[in-house]
Amino acid sequence: MTTISKDAKLVTLINVFTVEPANQQQLIDSLVRATETSVRHAQGFISAALHRSLDGTKVVMYAQWRSIEDYQRMREAPHSAPFLQEALALATFQPGMYQVVETFVSDCDNT
Amino acid sequence: MTTISKDAKLVTLINVFTVEPANQQQLIDSLVRATETSVRHAQGFISAALHRSLDGTKVVMYAQWRSIEDYQRMREAPHSAPFLQEALALATFQPGMYQVVETFVSDCDNT
Repeated sequence: MTTISKDAKLVTLINVFTVEPANQQQLIDSLVRATETSVRHAQGFISAALHRSLDGTKVVMYAQWRSIEDYQRMREAPHSAPFLQEALALATFQPGMYQVVETFVSDCDNT
Repeated sequence: MTTISKDAKLVTLINVFTVEPANQQQLIDSLVRATETSVRHAQGFISAALHRSLDGTKVVMYAQWRSIEDYQRMREAPHSAPFLQEALALATFQPGMYQVVETFVSDCDNT
């Protein structure tokens, strides 16, 4: 489970992959495998959540890291390269580094 | 606070705004105002978190809604239009509707 709070001292990566709908599931499988076997064990990784777009054309990885340096160290590690190449063979990749500005909750019971 | 879990029955909107860095703060102010005064009170809204990219070129709204229909009802409501127009005057808008496929947590203590 991932929690989003503006008080947490962390950096948020929101990486948007654009993919042919026929390849969406394969991209998801590849990103799950990369995260389970490699990324999740990296120093400074906190949590991540993988999302599939309902129209089939996108996949978003929302990830929290302790620092930019920790994330970059993982990206540059030799064992990360094959996973990234596998994903990039299937999709175009729009990366982004963010901080949380504000959070909002409902004022009604919507459950 | 927003919680991301694959077990929750909801739809996730990940809307990416691309903006001139000089206009990023104005876009953020506009989206905060729209969410506080309007969106947050809509039927079916659960929670949202607003993110600013560290390079100044993007803003991401990550929002959870009970259903697609609830989100679309808000978007089509007459009082939503001015807020959306204000944001679209400052930025280009890449919307997306998602479901959570998987979540991952660290296996170390990174706090």
